[in-house]
Amino acid sequence: MGRKLYDLVGEDPACRFSPFCWRSRLALAHKGLDVETIPWRFTETERLGFSGQGKVPVLVDGDSVVPDSWAIACWLEDRYPDRPSLFGGEGGKAVSLFTNSWADGVQHPQVSRMVVADIPPLLAPADRAYFHESRERRFGMPLEQVSADRAERVKTFRREVLHPLRVTLERQPWLGGDAPRYADYIVFGAFQWARVCSAFELLEDGDPVAEWRERVLDFHGGLARATPARPAPGLKGAAA
Amino acid sequence: MGRKLYDLVGEDPACRFSPFCWRSRLALAHKGLDVETIPWRFTETERLGFSGQGKVPVLVDGDSVVPDSWAIACWLEDRYPDRPSLFGGEGGKAVSLFTNSWADGVQHPQVSRMVVADIPPLLAPADRAYFHESRERRFGMPLEQVSADRAERVKTFRREVLHPLRVTLERQPWLGGDAPRYADYIVFGAFQWARVCSAFELLEDGDPVAEWRERVLDFHGGLARATPARPAPGLKGAAA
Repeated sequence: MGRKLYDLVGEDPACRFSPFCWRSRLALAHKGLDVETIPWRFTETERLGFSGQGKVPVLVDGDSVVPDSWAIACWLEDRYPDRPSLFGGEGGKAVSLFTNSWADGVQHPQVSRMVVADIPPLLAPADRAYFHESRERRFGMPLEQVSADRAERVKTFRREVLHPLRVTLERQPWLGGDAPRYADYIVFGAFQWARVCSAFELLEDGDPVAEWRERVLDFHGGLARATPARPAPGLKGAAA
Repeated sequence: MGRKLYDLVGEDPACRFSPFCWRSRLALAHKGLDVETIPWRFTETERLGFSGQGKVPVLVDGDSVVPDSWAIACWLEDRYPDRPSLFGGEGGKAVSLFTNSWADGVQHPQVSRMVVADIPPLLAPADRAYFHESRERRFGMPLEQVSADRAERVKTFRREVLHPLRVTLERQPWLGGDAPRYADYIVFGAFQWARVCSAFELLEDGDPVAEWRERVLDFHGGLARATPARPAPGLKGAAA
């Protein structure tokens, strides 16, 4: 039985923008494991019924069904111990959960506010309606309004939110140390999400975080770079 | 030659409040290594001349002199590989540097703002003058003013700054996983700093972070708990 990953897509099935799915795709590549990605859209929750929940990523590995990006990383580490390690030991796994919590709770909400208004045009019609309605309910305002202050917000994001990341990457080339590990894929996922969905630039040239992002884009034969960045021209709401 | 750690003290040499020194003291205890702590005060920079710099902690281990808490942790891990590991592998060490950067750059500035005004009365006279002057220059305002909004600030601190810590500790008992590791001592250091310097309570009962703090206080035979918390009565600026 082949290995499959259910992966969020836009109207164009080549548009792969879920930060959580990117964590899992890079984790699979890190382990040197082939995978067939199955395009999935927000409103297709029924198609995930077999997994007991309604979100991606979901990994189907032989007879095993593993939803949730963190659970997938732990599954891959346990199931394929002879492949390159995602965590570099039990301590790395434990402390990576803090990185995971920081990404989910601090990095993602900031990135989301800056790019959310650019996402609907990328989605299939049914998803577009779902996304608009659910995200406007979450933020309590029109999406255009959520992202309206991003030219200001990005300054604080760079200076304060990314500060611990920058200090770390000034001292070592990867969050994982001398080589990338799962911690890199956790944090990179949100930058890839922004890159695919929005022409709004989160990082400045010369920032060690921007240089690290390039290294992750290049890694595994340019796996993440192969999904194109959102182009600037003709993009609604891209000018900030 | 004995092992020595230069450790910041108040006017009372039993008042040990440096968050960075606490990282190193707990790291030494984790390794099961005896150490003589040498009381040191802010204005005694000349006494550290042998270390090539002017801050504590400084570890003197045989013929080796190691300043800086992170460097001390790495030294202990490399020098005593057969003792319990501080990092749990190379991945743990690398990802702990992100935790270290988060503590230094996000947690510490917040804690500092809330407790800084309580520190001068604890210090020896020469240190008191130095501390007042240097910290008021850093913050650009009187220390009492820096901490004046702490009753409000602590709400955001608990809800937002500690969020990634809380989410992690809801899923595992220690940042290090099933047992404490250096990541726990990094983050605990700032709570111990606040506990020793100020009666202002950073954490609420029932918060998983508060429960974890109790576990660290109990660990290693209650090493950190043996340094008493600042009592509330008669404390200048304690009422917020």
